[in-house]
Amino acid sequence: MGVDAGARMDLNSDVGEGFGRWSLGDDAAVIAAVTSANVACGFHAGDPATMAATVRTALEHDVAVGAHVSYRDLAGFGRRYVDATETELVGDVVYQIGALAGLCRTLGARIGYVKPHGALYNTIADADGAGAKHARAVIEAVGAYDADLPLVGLAGSPLLDRAREAGLGVVAEAFADRAYTPEGALVSRREPGSVLHDADEVAQRMVTLARTGSLQAVDGSTVRIEAGSICVHGDSPGAVAMAQAVRAALTAAGVELRSFAAAPRAA
Amino acid sequence: MGVDAGARMDLNSDVGEGFGRWSLGDDAAVIAAVTSANVACGFHAGDPATMAATVRTALEHDVAVGAHVSYRDLAGFGRRYVDATETELVGDVVYQIGALAGLCRTLGARIGYVKPHGALYNTIADADGAGAKHARAVIEAVGAYDADLPLVGLAGSPLLDRAREAGLGVVAEAFADRAYTPEGALVSRREPGSVLHDADEVAQRMVTLARTGSLQAVDGSTVRIEAGSICVHGDSPGAVAMAQAVRAALTAAGVELRSFAAAPRAA
Amino acid sequence: MGVDAGARMDLNSDVGEGFGRWSLGDDAAVIAAVTSANVACGFHAGDPATMAATVRTALEHDVAVGAHVSYRDLAGFGRRYVDATETELVGDVVYQIGALAGLCRTLGARIGYVKPHGALYNTIADADGAGAKHARAVIEAVGAYDADLPLVGLAGSPLLDRAREAGLGVVAEAFADRAYTPEGALVSRREPGSVLHDADEVAQRMVTLARTGSLQAVDGSTVRIEAGSICVHGDSPGAVAMAQAVRAALTAAGVELRSFAAAPRAA
Amino acid sequence: MGVDAGARMDLNSDVGEGFGRWSLGDDAAVIAAVTSANVACGFHAGDPATMAATVRTALEHDVAVGAHVSYRDLAGFGRRYVDATETELVGDVVYQIGALAGLCRTLGARIGYVKPHGALYNTIADADGAGAKHARAVIEAVGAYDADLPLVGLAGSPLLDRAREAGLGVVAEAFADRAYTPEGALVSRREPGSVLHDADEVAQRMVTLARTGSLQAVDGSTVRIEAGSICVHGDSPGAVAMAQAVRAALTAAGVELRSFAAAPRAA
Repeated sequence: MGVDAGARMDLNSDVGEGFGRWSLGDDAAVIAAVTSANVACGFHAGDPATMAATVRTALEHDVAVGAHVSYRDLAGFGRRYVDATETELVGDVVYQIGALAGLCRTLGARIGYVKPHGALYNTIADADGAGAKHARAVIEAVGAYDADLPLVGLAGSPLLDRAREAGLGVVAEAFADRAYTPEGALVSRREPGSVLHDADEVAQRMVTLARTGSLQAVDGSTVRIEAGSICVHGDSPGAVAMAQAVRAALTAAGVELRSFAAAPRAA
Repeated sequence: MGVDAGARMDLNSDVGEGFGRWSLGDDAAVIAAVTSANVACGFHAGDPATMAATVRTALEHDVAVGAHVSYRDLAGFGRRYVDATETELVGDVVYQIGALAGLCRTLGARIGYVKPHGALYNTIADADGAGAKHARAVIEAVGAYDADLPLVGLAGSPLLDRAREAGLGVVAEAFADRAYTPEGALVSRREPGSVLHDADEVAQRMVTLARTGSLQAVDGSTVRIEAGSICVHGDSPGAVAMAQAVRAALTAAGVELRSFAAAPRAA
Repeated sequence: MGVDAGARMDLNSDVGEGFGRWSLGDDAAVIAAVTSANVACGFHAGDPATMAATVRTALEHDVAVGAHVSYRDLAGFGRRYVDATETELVGDVVYQIGALAGLCRTLGARIGYVKPHGALYNTIADADGAGAKHARAVIEAVGAYDADLPLVGLAGSPLLDRAREAGLGVVAEAFADRAYTPEGALVSRREPGSVLHDADEVAQRMVTLARTGSLQAVDGSTVRIEAGSICVHGDSPGAVAMAQAVRAALTAAGVELRSFAAAPRAA
Repeated sequence: MGVDAGARMDLNSDVGEGFGRWSLGDDAAVIAAVTSANVACGFHAGDPATMAATVRTALEHDVAVGAHVSYRDLAGFGRRYVDATETELVGDVVYQIGALAGLCRTLGARIGYVKPHGALYNTIADADGAGAKHARAVIEAVGAYDADLPLVGLAGSPLLDRAREAGLGVVAEAFADRAYTPEGALVSRREPGSVLHDADEVAQRMVTLARTGSLQAVDGSTVRIEAGSICVHGDSPGAVAMAQAVRAALTAAGVELRSFAAAPRAA
C-alpha cells in the first residue's frame, strides 16, 4: 500500500496532573509530542496555578486544550467509581469545564473539547449498561455548556452513539499501548499482553491504524477501529519516549498530525 | 427633607452557602429581598449542584449574580486567612469565577460582578498594608478574566482605589447591621455596639444612607459613606427579617432598588 | 404479656454531623435520648473541633461513643459508594477510628464501638455479594485496631456473620422508623410505606421489638429481628421527638436502656 | 580535639509526603539513613495507606515514628499560614496524632514524638510573638494527648521554653543544610548562602555540631546551637545523598546515631 496522502490523526495525552507540591510526568515533553492536551480540572488533579501553567505550555506548542473532567476524588486520582447522582455529576462536570475555561480566558486561550478521566471515562463508556446514568449526566453537561465542544470517548463504545444522538460532536479514541479483542474492545488489564511496551511496535501499529482504520487484534485477526484520536501517556520517561516514537512514525509515514479540536488560541 | 426621587441603591447578600448535605440560611427568602446575590463558588461553600440551584433562584427573581470568591478553606468557611502566594491566589480566584460562569452559561445566566468573601474580603481591604499581595492578586484575576466585571469591596478601603487604578469598575459597599467610626471604618466586632440588632433602626439608617450618603457614627457624629450597595445577611430568621425591613423601608422612602450589575439573564 | 423484667435495649443515633460552619440536627437533645452516640470522624462530616465537642456531650450524658466511619466523601456526606481498594479502605477506617480515639484520649473518654456510615454501611451489609471486598476491609480494620471493639451492622445481614467469624464482637441493629419485609429485610426506600412517620406507632413497635424480638412486617406477618440496638435519628425536630418517644415508651415498658458498649469515661 | 566518645545525635527527616497517586522523594532510602521519621498525617500530605506503608518501613529499619502534624492545607502542602482558631488547631493536631497512632497500633508500632510541619513549624517557633496562639494550641494538644511525647522544634526558639514550662519534653533541632546567624537563628532563605549545597561541607559541619554543640555562623564566628536532632531532607536524589553523607560522617567520627524517641516497635 502506498502512502495515503490524506491520512490525518490526532494524538492526545493527559497533562497537568500534579496538585500543589506534587507533579506527575514531563508535561513539557509530552505536550511537544501531541496535538491535544487533556488538562486536569481540579477534581482528580490540577490546582488552578498548575492548570494555568499547563494551558500556557499548550499555547506555546499550539496544542488543543481539552477539559479532562473527573469524579471528585483527589485521594483516588479519579480512578475510583463514585456513585454521584445525575444532578451532582452534571454540576461537577460543568464546574470543571467552566473553571478551565475561566483560566483559558485569562490567557487568551479556549477549550477545544471535553474528555472524561479515569473511572468516569470507563463508567460512561458503558452508556447502555451500568454507566447509563453517568453517561446521561456527562452528555447533558457538555451539551448544556456548549454543544459544539466535541466529547472524546472510547472507540466503539455506546457512549459515542448516545452523545451523537444528543447532538454532540464526538471523537472516538484508540489507546496506543493497548491490545484489542477481535471485537474491537480493549483487552482487560487483568489479561496478559493487554498492555504493549515496545515503542517501535506501538508506533507501527498506530501508523497502520491511521492509514487503514484497522489494527491487529490479540488473536492475530484484523479488527476495524474507527478512531479520530490516539491516546498516549506521559507519566514516565518510557511513556514519553513511546509518545515521541508514535509521533515520529506517523510523521514519517506521511500522516498529518492535527487536532480535531479548535486551536488553543482564542479567536 | 423631601423624598429624593433620584436615590437608588443595591442590596446584596451572601447565598448558596451550603455544601452537599449542609445548608445555611433561607436563600429563597433572601434572594427575594435583594437585588444582587453573592453566590459561593466552592472554596468556602457551594458545591456545583447548590451553585446551579442558587443561580436558578436568582434568575427567577431577576437578581444579579456575583461570584463570591474565597480562600480555599471549606473547614473554616473561608473565614481564616490563608497565606497563599500571589500566583496561587490569582489562579484560585479565576478558577472560582470560571466555574460559576460555566454553571451560569448552562442556565442562560451570566455573572454580573465579583465580591471576595470572608477573610479574603477583609485582607484585601487593607490593600496598601498587610493585604497588598492578595489585593494585587484579586485585582489581577478579575482584570484578566473580565475588566468589565465590577469588584465589590469595603466602602472607604484602599482596595477600591487600587482596583480603579487598574482599570476595574468598583462598587463600595456598606454593612446594614454594623456601626461605623467617625472616620467611616467599621467598629471592630470586639467592641460593644459594633453589630446592630434592631431591624427598624437598621432600616432607617439605610434609608438615610441611600438618600444622603451619610450615617450617624458610633460617637453621634455624621460620617460620609460612599456606598453603591448595602450588604444584608440571610443566615438566620432574624437576618432575613432585617433584610426585608431594609428593603421595605427603602422602597417606602422612594429609593429605587436596582443592582449596579448586569441582569442575570444572559443577553 | 406482663413486663419482661429482663428486657434491655440500646438506642443509637448519628451525631456530630456538622462540619466547620455547618451543623446538622440537635445533638444535645438526641444524645440525651440515646445510650450510644455514633460520632462522625471527618470523612463524611465532623471536623476535629466538632468531634471533640460531641464527645464532651456524650461524656456529660454517660452515653457510649462510637466511631462512625465513612467513605472519604464530604461532598456527598458519605452517601455515595466510592470504589476504594481494600488497602485504601482499611487505611481510611483505621485513620478515622484513631483520630476519634485521639480526641477521646484528650478528654478522658474512649471509643466503645464502630459503626460504618451511609453508603459504606449499606455496601458491607451485602458481605457475601457486591460488598464483599469492603466488608473484608472494614472487618480487617476493626480487628487490627482492636478486636474487642464491637462492630454495629444491619440486623440479619451477612456482615455480622463474617465479622463474628473473624473474631469481632457484633451488634445487630434495627431501624426504628423503617418497615420490614416478612424476611426481615428493610423495605426499600423506593417503596411506599418504607419509612414510618408516626412517633407513637414507632415507639410501640420498638417496645414490642425489645420485649419479643419480633416486629410486624409490612404484610402483617410477624418477623423475628435479632437486634441489640435500635437506630433513631436526630437530624430534624420530628426525628428528635420520635427518638424521645421511643425512649419514653421503652422506659415506661420497663425495658432497661443501656449501651452494649463500654462506658465513655476511660477507665 | 579527640573523638568525644559520648557524643550522640538523632537524624530526622520528613517522609510519607505523597498523597494517593502522588509520591515525593525516596522514603526507603531516607528512612535507612535516619533515626527518626516524621510521618505526614493527612493534612499536608499522607493518605492513610501511604501512612501505613511508611510506618512499616520505619519498623523495618527500627526508626522512631513521629507525627508530622500540619495546618489543613493539601493544596499548599502545609506551607501556608492558616489563621485557625486555637480550638480548631488543638483539634486538628490531636486528630492527626490520633490517626497516625491508630495506624501504628494496627502495625505493632507506636508514635515516639510530634514535629509540626511547614508553616505551622515556623509560626510556632515565634511562640512569644505572632505565633503565640498557635504555639499554645500545639502545646495544649500534645500535652492533652500524651505529655510524655517529646515535641521537636527549632533550636533556640521560644517554643521550646514554653513547651518545657507546660511540662512537655522537648527536642531542639538543627538543620543540616542551613546557614546560621551569629545569634543562632537560621539565615533567611531570601539571603544568598542561606542554603548549603555541598554534602561534604554539610557533613563536616554536623560532625562539629554533634561533638561541640557549636557551628560556624555565616560571619565566620562560632555560635552555640543546642540541638538534640539534626533535620535532613529526602525529597530529591541530592538530598538523599546529603543525608547519607551526614550519617556516614557522624558514624565515622564516632558519634552514636540514636533517636531521642521511643523505639517504633510497641512494647
